[in-house]
Amino acid sequence: MRPTMGKGRLEAFSDGVIAIIITIMVLELQPPHGTQAADLAGVLPGWLRYALSFVYVGIYWVNHHALFDRVAKVDGAALWANLHLLFWMSLIPWVTAWAGENPLAPLPVALYGAVLLLCSISFMLLSWRLDVEAGVHPMAWGSRKNRGSILLYAAAVLLSLWYAPLGAAVHVVLALFWIMPEAGQGGS
Amino acid sequence: MRPTMGKGRLEAFSDGVIAIIITIMVLELQPPHGTQAADLAGVLPGWLRYALSFVYVGIYWVNHHALFDRVAKVDGAALWANLHLLFWMSLIPWVTAWAGENPLAPLPVALYGAVLLLCSISFMLLSWRLDVEAGVHPMAWGSRKNRGSILLYAAAVLLSLWYAPLGAAVHVVLALFWIMPEAGQGGS
Amino acid sequence: MRPTMGKGRLEAFSDGVIAIIITIMVLELQPPHGTQAADLAGVLPGWLRYALSFVYVGIYWVNHHALFDRVAKVDGAALWANLHLLFWMSLIPWVTAWAGENPLAPLPVALYGAVLLLCSISFMLLSWRLDVEAGVHPMAWGSRKNRGSILLYAAAVLLSLWYAPLGAAVHVVLALFWIMPEAGQGGS
Amino acid sequence: MRPTMGKGRLEAFSDGVIAIIITIMVLELQPPHGTQAADLAGVLPGWLRYALSFVYVGIYWVNHHALFDRVAKVDGAALWANLHLLFWMSLIPWVTAWAGENPLAPLPVALYGAVLLLCSISFMLLSWRLDVEAGVHPMAWGSRKNRGSILLYAAAVLLSLWYAPLGAAVHVVLALFWIMPEAGQGGS
Repeated sequence: MRPTMGKGRLEAFSDGVIAIIITIMVLELQPPHGTQAADLAGVLPGWLRYALSFVYVGIYWVNHHALFDRVAKVDGAALWANLHLLFWMSLIPWVTAWAGENPLAPLPVALYGAVLLLCSISFMLLSWRLDVEAGVHPMAWGSRKNRGSILLYAAAVLLSLWYAPLGAAVHVVLALFWIMPEAGQGGS
Repeated sequence: MRPTMGKGRLEAFSDGVIAIIITIMVLELQPPHGTQAADLAGVLPGWLRYALSFVYVGIYWVNHHALFDRVAKVDGAALWANLHLLFWMSLIPWVTAWAGENPLAPLPVALYGAVLLLCSISFMLLSWRLDVEAGVHPMAWGSRKNRGSILLYAAAVLLSLWYAPLGAAVHVVLALFWIMPEAGQGGS
Repeated sequence: MRPTMGKGRLEAFSDGVIAIIITIMVLELQPPHGTQAADLAGVLPGWLRYALSFVYVGIYWVNHHALFDRVAKVDGAALWANLHLLFWMSLIPWVTAWAGENPLAPLPVALYGAVLLLCSISFMLLSWRLDVEAGVHPMAWGSRKNRGSILLYAAAVLLSLWYAPLGAAVHVVLALFWIMPEAGQGGS
Repeated sequence: MRPTMGKGRLEAFSDGVIAIIITIMVLELQPPHGTQAADLAGVLPGWLRYALSFVYVGIYWVNHHALFDRVAKVDGAALWANLHLLFWMSLIPWVTAWAGENPLAPLPVALYGAVLLLCSISFMLLSWRLDVEAGVHPMAWGSRKNRGSILLYAAAVLLSLWYAPLGAAVHVVLALFWIMPEAGQGGS
């Protein structure tokens, strides 16, 4: 059996990846083409989508922090469950750029929501794996909230395909729901 | 109530984000199109704006370092106050690109100053939160300097809208004011 | 003789570089030009190549982690052997972009495989150097797997030049081979 | 007087910035436009310049590592001396892109060398500051090599303006000189 390892490098690596994800999104924000207020207004949808994605990545970082605070060791499966989460998170800048440029188009907004859904599922899988490893009853950590969010993210994907602003509204509401103080525990 | 956590990951994550912000700005600096001295001179305004932003991000890093040296633990509200600061700082590369390309246009220079203003306000809020958490009298840390700067950043926004080089001059003067040795304590 | 140093900064620096490599690849993924399903389908080959590269960089990170868990000190030669590995890894985003845009062209797919081959060779050299330094018999760590992979990567380069999808298939099979649980030890 | 601080965050921040510098250069390497060997050959000068810059950034990281291994505390002036070094290093990707696209043009190659010269001078200033702070006789650390390099970098700037390949040759020779084993100590 694979021996467990200290969690230090997993945390450091995850902090690095999350720090890059949260920061490189700004590279997709092109400066306005002109120098007038109308030019600035033109980049507003992309900017709002950027702010929303910043909040989501922040939520994941806060919850990742809380999640690993409770374990001391990780095994190989936990390393991969963590990389799986980081993979879906790494697509956030890409869907942010697409949805930011096309704020009213069904497919980009739905894809944005689908990536949030996959992040949420992979966060749940990671919590599960850490629970199993620690010998704790699986689904012990804030999972009701995590599972509820998964359903809402899935609903937002369908809503976006029907009417994009409705899906976007669900994304905003879920973000607000997660940054409220008592929301700090468990997945997202 | 949410338990407090060690500050290690908050510092590591902030260092990561600030390191990325200070470095990716250079990606917005396009190489000159030709290979003559005149081509190089053409990128000078963008280059100077880059140097100024590098100094500002450096100032924030030095002050962030000093601020967290004085606390041992952080709670959830401090995590979000810190993310709030990082959000406004993450926009520095974007306004640097816009103001660097349009060094004499009122709106880009004013927006650059507005982002500095919001960074300064969010730094003050973060200091406040850490003070409250530590049970120290709020506004105890270098706040006179921080508050004074906030007023000057706000003035620079208005000045920029009237005559951009004047606003830019205030940005330079405030940067010099903050890198002077005794300026190392408190907000920015 | 050069004194040895703690491995802390080497690990932190490597984590930083690997985190950036794994994350910036997404910047090469352009958002689709339109907002229809057909536009999204057009970026699928690039996206699959991105996912494959993400897995490869993840494999290297997991194995790097396992490799350095067994040493306490590094000397100057190990620093450079590590930088040599990071150099070839740093080219993964570049070959991912080229092979992602040209998924059926022999040369891009062959070059992608050549970079994987050079990563694998440099990982073997790094293991060797750490073994020599630790006074362990060289080639003690999972090297049969590492050496076998090197031969297969080399074969994939030749196969790609003959028929690109065949080379790509080898890349996928080798990735699966390395993420299987018992594959966590040694080089890649 | 400003109190000194632990060096941990300075090292972590510098590692982050240097890791980003060494990695984002690859973003400036455009994939070849076609898929033939001739297209690949067209990007070779940029690629070689990238490899050289990777080696230079690696040299600085190794020497930065060695330099800070000898101090335990840093003061505010050392923080700024370090940021000053990182500023000039942050310009390496920019001059790499320009010199990589114009490998035979005097000005880009001279500017590349000028940035190396400024990195070297700022490394010397940082060593000095750390010496003064530690109460050691200034210029005690490998400074002969550092000073010698400064003269050669300055000469390379002039040579590049006269005949670019000659300047480039000096850059290559100096890199080789610094990566030789006994070259690990002191500035660069």
